[in-house]
This record gives sequence, structure tokens and C-alpha cells, in this order.
Amino acid sequence: MRISELSERAGVSPASIKYYTREGLLPGGERTGYNQTEYDEGHVARLRLIRILIDAGGLSVSAAQRVLAAIDDEDLQLPSVFEAAQHAIPQREAPASAAARARVAALIEQRGWMVHGDNPGIELAGGILDAYTAIDRDDLAAVLPQYAEAADIVAAADLDALDASGSREAMAETVVVGTVLGDSLLAGLRRIAQQHQTYQRYIAPRSEQQS
Amino acid sequence: MRISELSERAGVSPASIKYYTREGLLPGGERTGYNQTEYDEGHVARLRLIRILIDAGGLSVSAAQRVLAAIDDEDLQLPSVFEAAQHAIPQREAPASAAARARVAALIEQRGWMVHGDNPGIELAGGILDAYTAIDRDDLAAVLPQYAEAADIVAAADLDALDASGSREAMAETVVVGTVLGDSLLAGLRRIAQQHQTYQRYIAPRSEQQS
Repeated sequence: MRISELSERAGVSPASIKYYTREGLLPGGERTGYNQTEYDEGHVARLRLIRILIDAGGLSVSAAQRVLAAIDDEDLQLPSVFEAAQHAIPQREAPASAAARARVAALIEQRGWMVHGDNPGIELAGGILDAYTAIDRDDLAAVLPQYAEAADIVAAADLDALDASGSREAMAETVVVGTVLGDSLLAGLRRIAQQHQTYQRYIAPRSEQQS
Repeated sequence: MRISELSERAGVSPASIKYYTREGLLPGGERTGYNQTEYDEGHVARLRLIRILIDAGGLSVSAAQRVLAAIDDEDLQLPSVFEAAQHAIPQREAPASAAARARVAALIEQRGWMVHGDNPGIELAGGILDAYTAIDRDDLAAVLPQYAEAADIVAAADLDALDASGSREAMAETVVVGTVLGDSLLAGLRRIAQQHQTYQRYIAPRSEQQS
């Protein structure tokens, strides 16, 4: 198909298509004549994936380029694809304090988790513990054990989805998309569960008393 | 204390202090003379909270203003404070499709969750399901039941933290800070659990075979 059809099918402007090609996110089409390039279904699918990573996932173009390169690199083992996806997600700028990192490390030991010291989750979780400390609310860290349990359930589901993906390319896509978007899916369900449980604890008992 | 000391204690510039006061995020200090204003410990604590919401939580100044108003409004019941916090967190711009909302509604019914139809989590989770559909990866939604279970564990921890907070003001702060920052804390722990479980499933079995 021509670039105009590709643009319409994928919902991406021709200018953006050319930009993504230049930046290495999208393979070039096949030159079939002067000023004419043919694209195929693979380009449609890749463009949709690019939009998802950038629009829904909030990745920068260069971060999206890095995770797409990890999908394309067939020599890369899955743990490395995971790592690429985890590092691509926007992180906090300020590094976590040594004290906060130590608290996360203690939790990791408690749960028997086997992870590298440079796992980006340590920095991310540590930064939040620092934020709690900064407002004198270290008590909020009491949620850690339950959050860790929930994280294990979520990670198990993530790995199940990976196992069910079939081809290596689909597995790599699962890692990238699941890692980037899974946080928001979980955040959405958390809002719903919060409202339900607030109702159960604070409102339902009161209505029962009244009836 | 003078504005210069407040600025140093809270790590916020005098210009920002004046800006937050004008925008209604920070109560004004006490005028003690010509061009002189006294601030107290309450101002230090509030400024730190403002920075956490904006820097770590990614809230806009107007979103931070709304959640702080919910903390300050003593007539507001806790479920309403939750709602204010949930609505303040940056959302996706595109609304979820009716089909995706129906899938989230089916999950809500399955779990017996009692929630309002306008809970922002429905929109957020629905938008992610739409993203999966857009790249022909509806199979990724297979994680929903496990994610929902994890969300319930997290929400229960959130409510426990709330119960333990003591004063109404501390409770409201717990709701706001926990809702805004809890997503990132959970995301961090998810990265760690993912790495651990990838190791368990893909790497540890192979080393055992070799030994």
C-alpha cells in the first residue's frame, strides 16, 4: 500500500510515518519507483504498536525506539527484553536515598526475591518511601508487605501471558506492552477496588445500623 | 518564621511559596508588619506535601489544589476525599470504548465489587483494554482476574493505612498521598517481582539442568 493508505489504516500522519522511519522505530517501505514506496501489513501493526507505546504508555520517541529494538533483536533473551522495557518507562529524576533503598532491599530479602541491584523497581519504590519520609508519614510504608504480595500475583499473571504468547516476536511484544501498560491497568482496577472497599467499610455498616 | 526560613526548611523558593498562596494551595502567613509575614510549622508541612503531590505524584498545580481542598474540607466524608484524589490523578485523554467499559463492568460484577459507574478506574482500565485491542492483542486481557485479585489486596492495605491514620486530617492526607503515590510504589515492586519470576521460570531451571 502507499503511504496515504498506511497513514489512514494506522491513524498516523505521513509526516509522523517518515519521522518514525528516520528515527529507526519503523522499518522503511520498499521503493517501487521515483518518490513511491510500498508498505505492508507489518507496517500497519508496527505503527499501531508505536502509537500505543507513546500515547497510552507515555514513552518518549527515543524510549519507544529502544524497546522496539529489543523486540526486534532476536539474539536478546526474554529477561533482557524485560529489562529494556523496564528501563524505558519514564522514571523519577531524583535518585532514592540509601536508607530507602535499604528498606526495599530488606523487603526483597523477606520475600526471597532474586533480583539485580540495579533493578529499576528498587529506585522507583525507594523514591516513594523517601516521599513518605519527607512528609513525616513513614507509617504509610506499612502497606509494603501487602503491596509485595500483590506484585507477585501481578508478575505471575504477566509471566503466564508471556508463556501463552507463542512466537518469540509476540513474547517480546507481550513483555513490552504488558510492562508499559500493565501499571495503568492495575491502577484502574485499584481505584475500583478502593471504592468498593471504602463502601464496605464505611458506608454499608452504617446503612445496616439504620435499617 | 520568615519566608526565607520557610523557603529553606521546605526546599521551595519564595516565588513558588507566593504562587502557591495565590493559587489557594497554601494558607497565607500572618502579617506582622509592613512587608513582613510570619509562617509556622503547618506551612512547612503543607509545602512539603505540595511538592510531593506535584513532583513525585505528577499532579498539575490545579489538580493539587483540588486534592488539598478535599483534605481541608472537614465536612467531606472519606469516600468523597478518595473520589477527589482519584479524579485529580492525570487521566488518559481518549475515552474508553463502550465495549471496553462493558468488559470492565463484567469483571466488576464477577468480583462483586460495588462501585459507581463514573469511577475513574473504569475509564482507565477500559482505555488499556482498547489499546490491547488496537494492536490485535486481546489475549493480553487474560491477566484481568489476577490483576483484580491483586487490586483487592492493595485496596485492603490502603484502607488499613487509612484506619491507622488517627485524625481526620491525617486520614485525608493518607487517602490523597496513598492514592497518588501508591501506583508508583506498586509499579516498582512489580518490576522487582517480574525480574524474580523471570529468573525462576526461565533461568533457574536451565542452570539446574546444567549442574
